[in-house]
Amino acid sequence: MKSPTWKQRIQRSLHLSRSKPESKYFQVASIGIEGQPKARTMVFRGFSELQTQFVAVTDIRSEKYDEFTKNKQAEVCWYFAKTREQYRLSCSVNLHTSGSLVKYYWNCLSSSAKNSFSLPHPKVPIELNPCDSLQEEVKSTESSDTLLEQFISPNFVVIEFVPFCCDYLNLKSKPQLRTIELLNDENQWHATTVNA
Amino acid sequence: MKSPTWKQRIQRSLHLSRSKPESKYFQVASIGIEGQPKARTMVFRGFSELQTQFVAVTDIRSEKYDEFTKNKQAEVCWYFAKTREQYRLSCSVNLHTSGSLVKYYWNCLSSSAKNSFSLPHPKVPIELNPCDSLQEEVKSTESSDTLLEQFISPNFVVIEFVPFCCDYLNLKSKPQLRTIELLNDENQWHATTVNA
Repeated sequence: MKSPTWKQRIQRSLHLSRSKPESKYFQVASIGIEGQPKARTMVFRGFSELQTQFVAVTDIRSEKYDEFTKNKQAEVCWYFAKTREQYRLSCSVNLHTSGSLVKYYWNCLSSSAKNSFSLPHPKVPIELNPCDSLQEEVKSTESSDTLLEQFISPNFVVIEFVPFCCDYLNLKSKPQLRTIELLNDENQWHATTVNA
Repeated sequence: MKSPTWKQRIQRSLHLSRSKPESKYFQVASIGIEGQPKARTMVFRGFSELQTQFVAVTDIRSEKYDEFTKNKQAEVCWYFAKTREQYRLSCSVNLHTSGSLVKYYWNCLSSSAKNSFSLPHPKVPIELNPCDSLQEEVKSTESSDTLLEQFISPNFVVIEFVPFCCDYLNLKSKPQLRTIELLNDENQWHATTVNA
């Protein structure tokens, strides 16, 4: 399958913005458990080399894991301030809790990122943390960094975004350029230039 | 009503990042016409001075106008790269097409922003633009800038975001600080510090 124009463009944007924070993360919209819109920043962990999929990671105890378990739709909004380009990627989402992708991306994490998966449960009020076990937990992670890094945390999840549409906007070009690129039934990407 | 902690914090973030692009815009999640998640970047047009509402503007012919007409929920995700702070603001949305807010924010727009409301219909394929009328339109906007600016475009819409929850995350503090601040039934904001 031919690489879509948006992927070629996004790789250029990533290169031009490689020293900028916006090359490191994007915003993701999902559907909340009660059907409400949700938006959060997630760290970009990389593209599939030959395909259009890309990856973020999360904690199985996080709200976004529950949301994506219930509704596997996402829209990723990636804005590059330096080049004034926006990519809106409509995606379906695959969650991976085991397998080669999980192993690969776990090994890409820093030690502190690995340790974050054994911290107390996200979004629980701090005063509800069991003090003794927390201290124990912290102590044990301090004394067993090497051990921890060998074993993939059971809380670690790889989120694979599989795009089927890209709405690309370039605010620098005159007039502004907007292209909608869609994956059709024959698995081919087809682009239409539209009014911004 | 006492100003919530998140508003005091966001004003500080805006000040510290005033020279950075991230002080100019945020990302907004909405529910698409078919129930799908949507995410887009929108330009921040300002806070209500005494309250917690804030404003963006759009074109009545845009998809987001249709989406917010159907479903008045939004979540705004505002990430400040410099200070490594994220605000996730769950909001209800009010759409204004006339009245004092519309007049006020129309007058805040630059000439080129004002002109954008008389450009061809957003998201229509460029080859479908009626060539003659487009040329006419462009000509007419060129020759009537002053006239245009006096009259508010009927396509101009003010989107007012009314927050009822802020999920604040500070990635710089050690350990990371996360606070959930909720507007309760007595119209008071109440904050809880939770695990990040």
